[in-house]
Amino acid sequence: MISVFILFSAISVAPADEAASDPSVAAALDRIRDAGMSDAWAYRRLADLCDKIGPRISGSRQAEAAVEQLAAALRTSGLNVTLQPVKVPHWGRGEEQAEIIDYPGRPTGVTQHLQLNTLGGSVATPVQGISGQVLVVHSFDELRAREAQARGKIVLFDVPFNEDLALNGQSGTAYQQAVIYRVQGASAAARAGATAALIRTVGGANYRLPHTGVMAYDPKVAKIPTAALSAEDAMWVSRLAAEGPVTLHLKLLPQTLPDVDSHNVIADWPGRERPEEIVIVSGHLDSWDLAQGAIDDGAGVISAMGAVHLLQSLGLHARRTIRFVGWMSEENGSAGGQSYAKSDSNVLARHVAAIESDSGAGRPLGVSAHVTPEGMPELKPLMQSLTPLGASVLSHVDEAGGADLAFMDALGVPTLEPIVDTRTYFDYHHSPADTLDKIEPDNIRRQVAVLAMMAYFLADRPAALPRLPVAKP
Amino acid sequence: MISVFILFSAISVAPADEAASDPSVAAALDRIRDAGMSDAWAYRRLADLCDKIGPRISGSRQAEAAVEQLAAALRTSGLNVTLQPVKVPHWGRGEEQAEIIDYPGRPTGVTQHLQLNTLGGSVATPVQGISGQVLVVHSFDELRAREAQARGKIVLFDVPFNEDLALNGQSGTAYQQAVIYRVQGASAAARAGATAALIRTVGGANYRLPHTGVMAYDPKVAKIPTAALSAEDAMWVSRLAAEGPVTLHLKLLPQTLPDVDSHNVIADWPGRERPEEIVIVSGHLDSWDLAQGAIDDGAGVISAMGAVHLLQSLGLHARRTIRFVGWMSEENGSAGGQSYAKSDSNVLARHVAAIESDSGAGRPLGVSAHVTPEGMPELKPLMQSLTPLGASVLSHVDEAGGADLAFMDALGVPTLEPIVDTRTYFDYHHSPADTLDKIEPDNIRRQVAVLAMMAYFLADRPAALPRLPVAKP
Repeated sequence: MISVFILFSAISVAPADEAASDPSVAAALDRIRDAGMSDAWAYRRLADLCDKIGPRISGSRQAEAAVEQLAAALRTSGLNVTLQPVKVPHWGRGEEQAEIIDYPGRPTGVTQHLQLNTLGGSVATPVQGISGQVLVVHSFDELRAREAQARGKIVLFDVPFNEDLALNGQSGTAYQQAVIYRVQGASAAARAGATAALIRTVGGANYRLPHTGVMAYDPKVAKIPTAALSAEDAMWVSRLAAEGPVTLHLKLLPQTLPDVDSHNVIADWPGRERPEEIVIVSGHLDSWDLAQGAIDDGAGVISAMGAVHLLQSLGLHARRTIRFVGWMSEENGSAGGQSYAKSDSNVLARHVAAIESDSGAGRPLGVSAHVTPEGMPELKPLMQSLTPLGASVLSHVDEAGGADLAFMDALGVPTLEPIVDTRTYFDYHHSPADTLDKIEPDNIRRQVAVLAMMAYFLADRPAALPRLPVAKP
Repeated sequence: MISVFILFSAISVAPADEAASDPSVAAALDRIRDAGMSDAWAYRRLADLCDKIGPRISGSRQAEAAVEQLAAALRTSGLNVTLQPVKVPHWGRGEEQAEIIDYPGRPTGVTQHLQLNTLGGSVATPVQGISGQVLVVHSFDELRAREAQARGKIVLFDVPFNEDLALNGQSGTAYQQAVIYRVQGASAAARAGATAALIRTVGGANYRLPHTGVMAYDPKVAKIPTAALSAEDAMWVSRLAAEGPVTLHLKLLPQTLPDVDSHNVIADWPGRERPEEIVIVSGHLDSWDLAQGAIDDGAGVISAMGAVHLLQSLGLHARRTIRFVGWMSEENGSAGGQSYAKSDSNVLARHVAAIESDSGAGRPLGVSAHVTPEGMPELKPLMQSLTPLGASVLSHVDEAGGADLAFMDALGVPTLEPIVDTRTYFDYHHSPADTLDKIEPDNIRRQVAVLAMMAYFLADRPAALPRLPVAKP
């Protein structure tokens, strides 16, 4: 996942002549930056996570193996590790198959195979599958207008991912516009009496890849099975349906199993003056089930771990404790972030800021911050130190910096995330192509440096950033 | 398939001031060009072929449906159609599955799924599959040097497709360098005592797509099963194997069934003066089994058919007959081209030239010609007329212009093909992503125009091009 913000608009750059840096802090940040840029540890750990654990959907054996692998790496480098128990969903894909069994101009005996992936959390079809005519719509509005035609049909939401927007630096907006059909499409179709819902895959770069991702059912309507067609297959079905009736056969046999005991991985790099006060630096450990989860979120969780390792290797203690957290089950409802925020309100009151990296492994461009307006200028010395990395963009956002941080953000903890280049992020996101080879090792070094600098800066400030107003429940 | 030539080197451009054009021929070519650029018929036929027939591997029901569909379209436009019988191979993919079952650092209970496609013509593994340790090599030379280590192993040829070369206009060379491992890898590995052979997929753009394609066995060594891993999976296995022993389980269950009766589709647009003399304009009707075969070779075969349709719609008869041929089974040994060349040597002696389009649907850039050196300058008036389309490159090549033409080329018939932009051709070629949406309708119009102009020019010349020397068998 990535949270949604507009990357290259409404940004402000820290003016070099204005911020009042503490020279000793600036020197520490320079040291961290230079050491980060020659770090080799984090990329090696990322390769271990991707190549040796691979896909690690919450509830799976591999998710737990990832917990063990990161805990072992942290212990080997001499840190105490806490495994915080988290109950997580356990959904498994199972068989998935789709055919176009009838269409205008079909030669006798010919059916067509479709490329699709069941969406995370979907219910199954009967074991023999279901058949039904397709209704193609291009928006929720169109579905409402054609509601009478949807009864008993398979609804296909043929909504393209806006690649131009993504390539122009607004990938978050492009994602937001399309993902709503992944999340809400099934219940919208069920409300109109459909038997199943298909979406056009949410992602750029058309190479016949259906991208998966979580969906959610409205408890007030029937649960119907739902899957993503590759962009090519969605366009194909739409072209056929424009000529006449198209009938599909779908067999989707996912299983929702009982919740599983899993863990957040936590390790502290203690503060030198106020060790009870905490700045979190984090990413999520789980991934989708189709690939190595290299960019989502191997890169983020390992860079966060690498940031703590970097400070440790420099022997550099900030005023406060810097806590690495590897969150479990971000992809399936953020049970890890939720459990953490609920665990101890007294401890949470001593969390002065939280950082998550969950936007992939593009080149870091700056910092996005959900802090109060008064807090924003206080970040300027950090931005000055980030300038030599080309990461000087500071952007104020209105929501939590990372899905796992949303719960503590709502309780008043300022949250931040690195801004990275996400122009091609959604080409791979949640797809079988999210693999280690997509990542430039240099970008991992950059992200380790940026995260370590962010964490150190926030943890070392004499005064904490102002807390956010507590959100209404 | 595309034949191999170097696209942007060793080319000559027709000088505008030198060629002695016949004004009436030039006027006819201008008319064809302008009409081609507003043609809508061909793209509509291409959509029919891709969307309604889809994959059409030789021997399949869909290949025969493609024969029927094209024949019907030609008959509807008033042409006589001949279906020339061709016996074609019938190979079917069947189940294919691969796992990494052991590797250094493997967590207990974890195995890894690999993305692969069985190569066309491969024999099967036993039904329960085979397991074996991997030997990764990067060339035939390395395999020879490590031959003692290959016995009983699964050999992986991890040879990357050179994308830089392809993007620099030398996709043919990039393909040639990699495809030799697809074609000859299995027998090379078998010679060293391996139990199976894997290649790194032959194609650009890494989106976890294994591209398929034909392979060939050396009759002197054991036939072992063979498949292509996606580039990502090949890199992954190689990284693991660099750390220690890696064991795979492969289950590949293709079937080679008895040869099937199929057809070349032939339709003539009669010559006004010497109707017994023939210029062929052609493409191949069959495709691989993973996708619609839009660029390979839906675009070519339909543009060739569109060229004849265009001349017919203009009522423009050249001096000689222009014959459309849709070849069957190019992908599996070119049985169609072979049968045609063998069918009647007297008729073949009256073939003055043959054109095939089989390099996809990129923008046409010019003409590649396997004609005698004395014949080359005679093409200059054609190149002048192609200049307004931006297709003025004339390139002399040393081999047949199209795999299906190789047999008649060897018997002396000059062969030509349009040069098109193939920089991204191998991103899709033989992969699941070779679908209609990859094609700009405008490029089909351009290709229809170019093919119709080439065919008309060659068929209308008072004297035929000099014949090629007959190749030694």
